[in-house]
Amino acid sequence: MSVYTTVDPRQLEDWLAGYSLGNLVGLKGIAAGITNTNYFVTTTQGRYVLTLFEALALEELPYYLALMSHLARHGVACPTPVADNSDRFASMLAGKPACLVSCLDGADTATPSAAQCRAVGAMQAALHKAGDTFTLRMKNPRGPRWWSQSAHRLYPLLTDADRALLKEEIQLQDSHRFDHLPSGVIHADLFRDNVLLKGDAVAGFIDFYYACNDILLYDVAIAVNDWARRADGTMDDALARAFLEGYRKVRPLTGEEENDWPVMLRAGALRFWVSRLLDLHFPQAGELTFTKDPNAFRDLLLAHRERRDFWL
Amino acid sequence: MSVYTTVDPRQLEDWLAGYSLGNLVGLKGIAAGITNTNYFVTTTQGRYVLTLFEALALEELPYYLALMSHLARHGVACPTPVADNSDRFASMLAGKPACLVSCLDGADTATPSAAQCRAVGAMQAALHKAGDTFTLRMKNPRGPRWWSQSAHRLYPLLTDADRALLKEEIQLQDSHRFDHLPSGVIHADLFRDNVLLKGDAVAGFIDFYYACNDILLYDVAIAVNDWARRADGTMDDALARAFLEGYRKVRPLTGEEENDWPVMLRAGALRFWVSRLLDLHFPQAGELTFTKDPNAFRDLLLAHRERRDFWL
Repeated sequence: MSVYTTVDPRQLEDWLAGYSLGNLVGLKGIAAGITNTNYFVTTTQGRYVLTLFEALALEELPYYLALMSHLARHGVACPTPVADNSDRFASMLAGKPACLVSCLDGADTATPSAAQCRAVGAMQAALHKAGDTFTLRMKNPRGPRWWSQSAHRLYPLLTDADRALLKEEIQLQDSHRFDHLPSGVIHADLFRDNVLLKGDAVAGFIDFYYACNDILLYDVAIAVNDWARRADGTMDDALARAFLEGYRKVRPLTGEEENDWPVMLRAGALRFWVSRLLDLHFPQAGELTFTKDPNAFRDLLLAHRERRDFWL
Repeated sequence: MSVYTTVDPRQLEDWLAGYSLGNLVGLKGIAAGITNTNYFVTTTQGRYVLTLFEALALEELPYYLALMSHLARHGVACPTPVADNSDRFASMLAGKPACLVSCLDGADTATPSAAQCRAVGAMQAALHKAGDTFTLRMKNPRGPRWWSQSAHRLYPLLTDADRALLKEEIQLQDSHRFDHLPSGVIHADLFRDNVLLKGDAVAGFIDFYYACNDILLYDVAIAVNDWARRADGTMDDALARAFLEGYRKVRPLTGEEENDWPVMLRAGALRFWVSRLLDLHFPQAGELTFTKDPNAFRDLLLAHRERRDFWL
């Protein structure tokens, strides 16, 4: 369930008067997403997704909404925020920051094909290229400093083996500097459930609320760790190769990126192992998260440590 | 035929490398439009319309392309220009200024229904509202000064009756000032062939290359003169009423606009009578225009002069 905040049609009509979208025809709650409230809104002019932000403040939204608008303008498939008559992408509705975005036609998949992985890789590379001219900046809140600090909260709660592994992986990452690698805008959470597909094509990337400026290759590692991972936790070589092939056709990797790729795959796995451990051991009060299994990323780290072929 | 300039796939691939749109998959000329060269361009990421401008210069394009981008951003159905990696909407290709815009799904109609007229009226009102926050400016090149000057070239070539009518209509318009009416961005050429429809809905307004800043009501008059005109030249009251009803539901007309509406309908007809007379008597060298019958607008003017019910 993802309608935490109820919007009634009359209230919405008043709010819509600030847009050039015609008159309200329909309003329907969307039962997906775990952080924000989402509705389908139909007007005489079209169909949109209304998001009411349950955690982000109004002043935090411009980076994400301007980014989506910028990317869409450059042909990257993602929802386009609709501007109101004062040229703003967001304003308050029912006491929450709210925005309207275009409605995409597609669905996510838990079991992507190689062709779909190739298309997602290519679109991620397009996102990385299009991000070049985006002028706003956002630090990655889930970087090395965050995982080091988080690890200290987690160590007392882990098994000896897990504690040792986490320490080793953080040491490995600390001993690597990625500052020389190409950086820019990254989605930072390009998992299968954040991509809508239509056949083999990408209908749109969604959920940009972890997007930030960071190393591009880190984004690729996060995505490959998810798109090529089978239900049993093992990696599918064909899917990983297809993803990277699609990506490199649009943005070839540099030699330095190729060198750092194995360590970066482990950085991507580390980041999500840590956040899932936090969700498990320190759940946020009142947050209706599905607690996902942290061990999936621990096992992925262990597998990456043994891996010899990194699909390049 | 509207492929005046030939683009070969290799040349296009080089040009597309400046975009974040993936790789070229298909290229196909479009046999519609009479001024510019248009192609469908398919890349691994999507389908676009490529326009090579045969008359406009590169430095004349920003107004029109930024306007389309602005309107699309506000939810007005129209093609969205795609920005390249330098954040430009247009650059040179095959010696011509060229741009890519999103591909709309729909078709124009010569015989609209009342529901379609209502939808077009509503979308035109949305365009007028969304134009409020557009900051670039363009004078209307087809205003009172233009038709007065053009009339002097035409008088020697017209029948006595047509000459007398043209003089009277120009005098009538000269005796009216519209400066007090709401002004803003207008399409200025919202004829049936410049609107793509999908069922009863507007899929998109196209061909913004007469767009400018002028009196909003003038845009409504131009559109109603076309959308409600039957093949025999008479006006269909039901279609005219439906168009105005759709428009006024989104942007109500002021009392002053209602007062000036009958004279404005004649201004809209006068503008196209004059331009069609010019096309007939002074055809542009090398321009492949279909010469359209000027008498349709003369007859419309004569009918407006007799009209008592203006559908308000």
